[in-house]
Amino acid sequence: MRITVLAGGVGAARFLQGLRTAYPEAQITVIGNTADDIWLHGLKVCPDLDTVMYTLGGGIDAGRGWGRDDETYSILEELRAYDVPPLWFTLGDRDVATHLVRTQLLNAGFGLDQVTAALCKRWQPGVTLLPMSNDRVETHVVVDTPEGRSAIHFQQWWGQYRAELPALDFRFVGMEQAQPGPGVVEAIGDADVVVLPPSNPVVSIGPILSVQGIRDAVASGPAPVVGVSGIVGGRPVKGMADKCLAAIGVQADSAAVSAHYGARQLGGLLDGWVYESGDPAPDAALASLATSTLMHDAHSTAELARETIGLVT
Amino acid sequence: MRITVLAGGVGAARFLQGLRTAYPEAQITVIGNTADDIWLHGLKVCPDLDTVMYTLGGGIDAGRGWGRDDETYSILEELRAYDVPPLWFTLGDRDVATHLVRTQLLNAGFGLDQVTAALCKRWQPGVTLLPMSNDRVETHVVVDTPEGRSAIHFQQWWGQYRAELPALDFRFVGMEQAQPGPGVVEAIGDADVVVLPPSNPVVSIGPILSVQGIRDAVASGPAPVVGVSGIVGGRPVKGMADKCLAAIGVQADSAAVSAHYGARQLGGLLDGWVYESGDPAPDAALASLATSTLMHDAHSTAELARETIGLVT
Repeated sequence: MRITVLAGGVGAARFLQGLRTAYPEAQITVIGNTADDIWLHGLKVCPDLDTVMYTLGGGIDAGRGWGRDDETYSILEELRAYDVPPLWFTLGDRDVATHLVRTQLLNAGFGLDQVTAALCKRWQPGVTLLPMSNDRVETHVVVDTPEGRSAIHFQQWWGQYRAELPALDFRFVGMEQAQPGPGVVEAIGDADVVVLPPSNPVVSIGPILSVQGIRDAVASGPAPVVGVSGIVGGRPVKGMADKCLAAIGVQADSAAVSAHYGARQLGGLLDGWVYESGDPAPDAALASLATSTLMHDAHSTAELARETIGLVT
Repeated sequence: MRITVLAGGVGAARFLQGLRTAYPEAQITVIGNTADDIWLHGLKVCPDLDTVMYTLGGGIDAGRGWGRDDETYSILEELRAYDVPPLWFTLGDRDVATHLVRTQLLNAGFGLDQVTAALCKRWQPGVTLLPMSNDRVETHVVVDTPEGRSAIHFQQWWGQYRAELPALDFRFVGMEQAQPGPGVVEAIGDADVVVLPPSNPVVSIGPILSVQGIRDAVASGPAPVVGVSGIVGGRPVKGMADKCLAAIGVQADSAAVSAHYGARQLGGLLDGWVYESGDPAPDAALASLATSTLMHDAHSTAELARETIGLVT
């Protein structure tokens, strides 16, 4: 079975662990969000790609769900001592090594897809990890500050302001020129099933679907498409998706998120929707499953993955 | 008093500590060797400048004499795990922060002199630290390997081969185009005394003197020039200067090194020479002082500095 997953960071990575356990023989391709990428201190940082790579490769800080295990923070201390902004990004030393290797390979002329494959040679995530695009796309957040309205990088909004500064809009800078990365459209077209895991619909899955050709490939492809709600009881399980949904006028509600993606029958993307028992049911045009969506441990995560794939295959 | 010092790494940095202690009111300008600079993993590394900056700024690993105190090595461990060469350079995490800041500023278009000044804002070394040149110069070492004759970067010869691979020649790649850094020639011309501290004559002081205009500025400037031998009892106090001297046909001998610089009266650079008691005396054309040149502690180091300056002023 060929399973293609559109992935953000923490939630997607956890779900992918379950998917790999539940379907050890499957060919899993992950199309990773790169719109939260940022250049920091001259280094190209790809938080979502790295979260997936570290999680599946056994190098994640399991407690936080992001960043490296056994991490040290000497560099961050030094950058503070040098007083070189920005200082709101938690840049661990081990993580910096990844960014150094990535930046060096990018500067040598390799595409982000090739660089990601090179990094994955070490981590052996057991999936094929493809950046949504090799082109630079950055999510910027429109906010009002005492100095007036401005657009700041998503990572600044997230890291410095903890999403407390109301987001008026999200802009995927560079999106109009961005082409899907090598293999991305093919991975959707060749899939037996396409999954939208419990990632942030606005700033994780949203950018992937906004890359020219990707939404069409998902909507008009032969494979059934199934989504998993990351909203439980009206709140995101992790992260700040509610703040992001509010900015685009979507309620932080499992059913509203499924309506945001839309049922394929009604011109949307989804064939199936998996959501937390007790939450509002999605449109009847969708195959749906109310179940326990919380990924407490390896067993419950694999079970969720099995139920999700099972719903549409 | 204005004192200008041509400086390599460890020996010069130690001497400068003594000089600063002995002459707290002096304006000390350090012209730093940049020919051992290297681009590593996309980062601009300036070992000699950093050794001076860290030593005088209180951030040096005092035991080794180079690198940062309280250092961690997470990045190096990761680079080994990624198997990304070169791995023979001991790149500490705190040190990497310096290189990140430097590289980012260089990429923003600042000259190495400006970047060095920016880094020194934090370290407050108590001297003005000027790179010998803002232009890229790299010392390469001609060696015979089983694969034939080749030229490798000085840092590779030093770090990977521990200078055990016989050096057939040293080449300062880029030297012909290199201009003295801003303020360098002026610092020599305006000095009350110029010092060649106990640095490697071949790969530390040698490149500085090879930058177009610097040797002339020293030789024909108004200030007396005094050198301190880094060779004691026919061996370098620290480092591998004997291997370097052999490559250019100079004996590892204090008197031979003074002859290599030459007495100003005889068309060379030096007015005075300070060397270890018991070692061979230099040419009689030089004012000379046989004394204890070992910089055991703060007191003996300051005393050596005082004797050195006193010999020619």
